[in-house]
Amino acid sequence: MSDRRSAIKGLYVVTDTVIQNRFTHEELAGQAARGGARVMQLRDKKPGSGTLFDTAARFVEVCREAGAISIINDRADIALASGADGVHLGQNDLPVDVAREVLGPDKIIGGTASTIEEALRVEQLGADYVGFGHIFETPTKKKEYAPRGTGYLKKLCEAVSIPVVAIGGIDAGNIRQVVDAGADAVAVCRAVCAAENPESAARSLQEAFRT
Amino acid sequence: MSDRRSAIKGLYVVTDTVIQNRFTHEELAGQAARGGARVMQLRDKKPGSGTLFDTAARFVEVCREAGAISIINDRADIALASGADGVHLGQNDLPVDVAREVLGPDKIIGGTASTIEEALRVEQLGADYVGFGHIFETPTKKKEYAPRGTGYLKKLCEAVSIPVVAIGGIDAGNIRQVVDAGADAVAVCRAVCAAENPESAARSLQEAFRT
Repeated sequence: MSDRRSAIKGLYVVTDTVIQNRFTHEELAGQAARGGARVMQLRDKKPGSGTLFDTAARFVEVCREAGAISIINDRADIALASGADGVHLGQNDLPVDVAREVLGPDKIIGGTASTIEEALRVEQLGADYVGFGHIFETPTKKKEYAPRGTGYLKKLCEAVSIPVVAIGGIDAGNIRQVVDAGADAVAVCRAVCAAENPESAARSLQEAFRT
Repeated sequence: MSDRRSAIKGLYVVTDTVIQNRFTHEELAGQAARGGARVMQLRDKKPGSGTLFDTAARFVEVCREAGAISIINDRADIALASGADGVHLGQNDLPVDVAREVLGPDKIIGGTASTIEEALRVEQLGADYVGFGHIFETPTKKKEYAPRGTGYLKKLCEAVSIPVVAIGGIDAGNIRQVVDAGADAVAVCRAVCAAENPESAARSLQEAFRT
């Protein structure tokens, strides 16, 4: 497994300033890293490119100092400009193979899938990991299909060879089911960003992941 | 003057599907090129990255077949992915020097200025041209300051050494004043995209530019 792929494991926190506005992206990244999260994704669709670049540069710096992996949602240009470790591509973003041409061989590229077929496709196009979900019901993103559940997650983890990042409605109460199903990493947004104390929320999740 | 810089001259058309919805970006690029425009800029803030990439790829192909320069507004990643000749950066987009690191030495980078000081700054950061305006009143974009006029444009053209692309409220009736003030290129949006016949509107502007 390449270094790009082996980096994607453990607790993966998507920072969000829409579901909460107490903390900035870089504050959340710092808190989550102190709590043990190993991968952070900056997801922000609101700002213009200049503001997003400034935010990303601070976010990447915080992640680097904490020894965590920094991923930018959607924007390959912002990932390159900020020196992030990679990008995460949704299903309406750049195709994975096109992003690889833009980003070169060193950046981590995550793809998105909601079925095993999509996950295999994302792997074939050269993604370093696949974000798969949603596993459980979640209010963070509107979904047009039912939660996939951990039974389907298990089948998907057996079917693909790149790391699987499970996402959607995961919290301290159900994270073990997700890890037991074979997920290499568990992505959370609300369970950390909207927690009263993001650092201790991350710590609880990371401890539950490990045990 | 580098090839990147010398490419920016004549009629520069910003394609827009908000002020009109009869034609796609690639249709407008084809019509404007047949009318004699030499540079096209795809400006579209609405779609997600995947859709924007598809649009840009078609736009770039049309420009290439017509021998015109293709510029993508704002998005360095889309410019790289689509094989466009360059990007145009607004004042809230990536800084010019950061974009140069992302894009490498071959892509054309246009900056934006509304004063001579800003234009000199954009030149210093490594832009290949500066978009300056607005010259006249325009309904296409909301502006927080008064039109700059052709007197100020003349001073700006004398102050900077990179090509100056004048923009804002320019049409067949006033384009000569803009060219006489020293603009290397004249950017229009509404005067071509919203014209009954974009191709003949471009032709009239290009002819007025030349004479």
